[in-house]
Amino acid sequence: MLSKVLLNIAFRVLLTTAKRAVDSDDDDELLPSPDLPDSDDPITGDPDVDLNPVTEEMFSSWALFIMLLLLISALWSGYYLTQKRIRAVHETVLSIFYGMVIGLIIRMSPGHYIQDTVTFNSSYFFNVLLPPIILNSGYELNQVNFFNNMVSILIFAIPGTFISAVVIGIILYIWTFLGLESIDISFADAMSVGATLSATDPVTILSIFNAYKVDPKLYTIIFGESLLNDAISIVMFETCQKFHGQPATFSSVFEGAGLFLMTFSVSLLIGVLIGILVALLLKHTHIRRYPQIESCLILLIAYESYFFSNGCHMSGIVSLLFCGITLKHYAYYNMSRRSQITIKYIFQLLARLSENFIFIYLGLELFTEVELVYKPMLIIVAAISICVARWCAVFPLSHFINWIYKVKTIRSMSGITGENISVPDEIPYNYQMMTFWAGLRGAVGVALALGIQGEYKFTLLATVLVVVVLTVIIFGGTTAGMLEVLNIKTGCISEEDTSDDEFDIEAPRAINFMSSGPMQTDLGPYSDTNSPDISIDQLAVNNNKNIPQHSSLMVDNTLGVLDETENTSPNPGRSSIDKRNLRDKLGTIFNSDSQWFQNFDEQVLKPVFLDNVSPSVQDSVTASPSDFSSQNH
Amino acid sequence: MLSKVLLNIAFRVLLTTAKRAVDSDDDDELLPSPDLPDSDDPITGDPDVDLNPVTEEMFSSWALFIMLLLLISALWSGYYLTQKRIRAVHETVLSIFYGMVIGLIIRMSPGHYIQDTVTFNSSYFFNVLLPPIILNSGYELNQVNFFNNMVSILIFAIPGTFISAVVIGIILYIWTFLGLESIDISFADAMSVGATLSATDPVTILSIFNAYKVDPKLYTIIFGESLLNDAISIVMFETCQKFHGQPATFSSVFEGAGLFLMTFSVSLLIGVLIGILVALLLKHTHIRRYPQIESCLILLIAYESYFFSNGCHMSGIVSLLFCGITLKHYAYYNMSRRSQITIKYIFQLLARLSENFIFIYLGLELFTEVELVYKPMLIIVAAISICVARWCAVFPLSHFINWIYKVKTIRSMSGITGENISVPDEIPYNYQMMTFWAGLRGAVGVALALGIQGEYKFTLLATVLVVVVLTVIIFGGTTAGMLEVLNIKTGCISEEDTSDDEFDIEAPRAINFMSSGPMQTDLGPYSDTNSPDISIDQLAVNNNKNIPQHSSLMVDNTLGVLDETENTSPNPGRSSIDKRNLRDKLGTIFNSDSQWFQNFDEQVLKPVFLDNVSPSVQDSVTASPSDFSSQNH
Repeated sequence: MLSKVLLNIAFRVLLTTAKRAVDSDDDDELLPSPDLPDSDDPITGDPDVDLNPVTEEMFSSWALFIMLLLLISALWSGYYLTQKRIRAVHETVLSIFYGMVIGLIIRMSPGHYIQDTVTFNSSYFFNVLLPPIILNSGYELNQVNFFNNMVSILIFAIPGTFISAVVIGIILYIWTFLGLESIDISFADAMSVGATLSATDPVTILSIFNAYKVDPKLYTIIFGESLLNDAISIVMFETCQKFHGQPATFSSVFEGAGLFLMTFSVSLLIGVLIGILVALLLKHTHIRRYPQIESCLILLIAYESYFFSNGCHMSGIVSLLFCGITLKHYAYYNMSRRSQITIKYIFQLLARLSENFIFIYLGLELFTEVELVYKPMLIIVAAISICVARWCAVFPLSHFINWIYKVKTIRSMSGITGENISVPDEIPYNYQMMTFWAGLRGAVGVALALGIQGEYKFTLLATVLVVVVLTVIIFGGTTAGMLEVLNIKTGCISEEDTSDDEFDIEAPRAINFMSSGPMQTDLGPYSDTNSPDISIDQLAVNNNKNIPQHSSLMVDNTLGVLDETENTSPNPGRSSIDKRNLRDKLGTIFNSDSQWFQNFDEQVLKPVFLDNVSPSVQDSVTASPSDFSSQNH
Repeated sequence: MLSKVLLNIAFRVLLTTAKRAVDSDDDDELLPSPDLPDSDDPITGDPDVDLNPVTEEMFSSWALFIMLLLLISALWSGYYLTQKRIRAVHETVLSIFYGMVIGLIIRMSPGHYIQDTVTFNSSYFFNVLLPPIILNSGYELNQVNFFNNMVSILIFAIPGTFISAVVIGIILYIWTFLGLESIDISFADAMSVGATLSATDPVTILSIFNAYKVDPKLYTIIFGESLLNDAISIVMFETCQKFHGQPATFSSVFEGAGLFLMTFSVSLLIGVLIGILVALLLKHTHIRRYPQIESCLILLIAYESYFFSNGCHMSGIVSLLFCGITLKHYAYYNMSRRSQITIKYIFQLLARLSENFIFIYLGLELFTEVELVYKPMLIIVAAISICVARWCAVFPLSHFINWIYKVKTIRSMSGITGENISVPDEIPYNYQMMTFWAGLRGAVGVALALGIQGEYKFTLLATVLVVVVLTVIIFGGTTAGMLEVLNIKTGCISEEDTSDDEFDIEAPRAINFMSSGPMQTDLGPYSDTNSPDISIDQLAVNNNKNIPQHSSLMVDNTLGVLDETENTSPNPGRSSIDKRNLRDKLGTIFNSDSQWFQNFDEQVLKPVFLDNVSPSVQDSVTASPSDFSSQNH
């Protein structure tokens, strides 16, 4: 209701604006100002027209006003939908719709200043809109779930995106090769489009999943896949663009794969190192006494990881994601309480605004980008090809994952029980179908498509844009229904999630610390928690063995400690198997591989990177914490 | 120390960047990409050069990386200076200095992409950097002090800025008329420069004052003046620019004055109305159940006031300032606790980042703006003229303010005591001198100067830029010393200030409500609080009389209530004068004029705009609060 009023206002404002645009044009003619500056101005976007700075400022004000109004409408609709429990339509779909309506109005109204201002700009997208979303994703990530499902995520993300891009690329290349629409693109270009259309969107589907509290395992797999495949499509796209205008050879596939792996691991390293840098900075200075400066610095340094990584031709998304994870894992506990809150709320707020803004932008783009060339058949073929590609990626890879888990489970079981039992699928059929359905495309694809070169770039851009909007509307609009049809487990309330959402400002630090410490294993509603066979007593023993011995080293040489403890870290206890806990055990077979890291993290990394292990945890875990924490001050 | 390290890193990064810039240039030549998009791209800023989007993205990444690195250095220096209690050098001075160093490096290094990216852009300044500072100023404003010193603030801001602009304009016009430097500007242009150089800076001086906890009265006067005169110089500048190339007539002065008054009041109204709109929106919806959406919406709507006002050719600064004040006065109490905190921290963080960024930008601009024409004599004359102009504005107006207060005091006193007593100055000499010293110029002036037109625009821009940087360095660097020399009262700890700064997240709402209610009068350390002669008992009586009678009307017709209560609102009690409280009384003579508004606010506006008057206040103030507050739900 109110959103209608707002739209109405937007309408009137736009009409007035359009009039003013015409009027001010005349004003400009009257004013004797021939020699004006700023032909490179980003607001008018048109280097040929010299605008009076005052008029120009007015136009940018109106453009921004309209953008913010759209954002307000979208957020308000989101509130309204939540309030009325309407789940058929989603906020992001409405954002696109609002963007399209306003885009149409802008397109039809006279004057091109506002139209030029609101067109999609890939620089803004990559430098302003994308980072907050990625950073917040990393920061809010449920680390236990993420690392427990790492195998599935990586399989879906890396070979999955590759298969998807290749399938789309081949279908499009064949279609254009047939020559039915007089388009002739090279194979490298077809692969570029395939890469852009392989970046799935982490926003819409996950906000629906969040609203329904979908099973954390499915959530984590889709979330991780969509985050990582953005990074992968970007790298693939850039690789394909390098071959633009050159004959593609078979070796270029391997070159691309090598390039990708290098990029991924270096970016990950950059992110983790910067996160650790922040943790150490906070630990060894008194900056937490000035929370205002502290929170600014944390935000800025996190962003630096993104820009640094991009500047080095690495993947900023990967760096930022892992920087966020590292920040939450270590630096969080070194911040002042006020900064903890500020950072969390600011990340959430910026991410929310960016998400909505991106979809509005997509809607606007459909009408305000004047040079687009729409080829209906190509669009249909592309839309079909992404479904085919998604199918080719999800189902075989799911079977592969199920097979891996099955083999591994049977191998580890047979040694103990000696009999061949039926192992439940790691990813059952309804999860596979949901993963397929979750393959809607997002703004990353459009932003990449803006970089397509060559004769048919506006045709390809239009195709990508329409396909992206279609997938968001179709798949995004039907996700809620599919959850019911596929009988996916919903309403899973994870304790950690609720403590994130509700107002927990005065929660004492000790509790927060514990919830990411070893006790966290009891928190999840789901059985894929880590280390169910390590008790607190065991940890206490381990800590008693290790910490006093390292506390003197720690100050001298961090790396030395790293090497030493890797050897001394105890094996996870493998006691007798309780049949009742069989399913739990199955879920944790892969986790036990990462057990050594968790122990190592608790015993070495956390003491080195964290400021002071909170007393209540220390009391229960270590014997003599006082000399250790005082040493660090 | 660390800042040196950071600078060193910046150095290396820049060198690498420069190399890469050259390398990538070559890459571009090699790639067969002749027909590229985005000639209107805001990142390269050069419409003639078509850049590969990937390369382009890399450049924007490096440019942003450098900017953020500068910000980090500045903030880190700020922390270091505070930590080591170094007060001779201020953070903003260092920001300018860092900006200059990096600007020089960028200027000297090959490749012009980064140079183009980092040049000052008035659109960014007005649309991105300025709003957070103004919004935060309004939101964090000590409302009691501000409105109590309104007379002094308005006199310094309106005639003060006018005098300053005219004096500077005349001096510059005479200087150029002499023809010593072969510059020939029209009187309208000279006045334009005068207007740009009359906008004093609200950042540096106030952060020093904050650090020293300077007397709230002086703080408020200088704060209010510098906030309002930004708005006034902008309007004056735009008025002068209208006369560019036209002969200036005497009537244009009156036209300008009328235009200014209209602009000011309409802008104020827009800001207040939008603030009230937010309060009502929060009151009448359940949006506080979704704090994430709530805080986004509040932030966005506040920004809308700025852009709407600018779009209507009004003053966005004034609107935003009063929107912030209204938000804090009404909407704050309708927010969820989480949004209260989010909004406050986000405003502070954004303002802090913007402030530092602006000064870095100014420093960069000195070297990266390639077309500047420096005329040393003109710069010296301009620097002298701003001192003369400030002198002409501050001292006569201070005498005028003292005279007004004296006359008013004597008149109101003589009716009661019958004798002629010596009245202390409202603004004593050391306060006048400090106000003079606080007249350093800021980024608003430079942003305006970018809009100067005509043949000598780069000469005038260079002059304004250098003068601004000089005043910040000279006056900003010596403020701390002047505070001691002039024997200004420092270390005044206002209770409200401390509760703002420290971590008060779990402060119960009732206390917050009271502190802006009538009890607030006891809070300030200074005697210029309002209504010392209205006791809570009196208020209770008034409320008993008024509220039950209005509570039924309120729902039907707000305007009707407004008219009615203006008449029925009780006169502030004027009981016998206690000689011991003479100074208190003197300070509140002007305040008693605004007493009716405070009563009106408490009894009518707050019940209408606020969601629920907190029980503890209600119990002590009104007789039957329960039916009244339930009515509003």
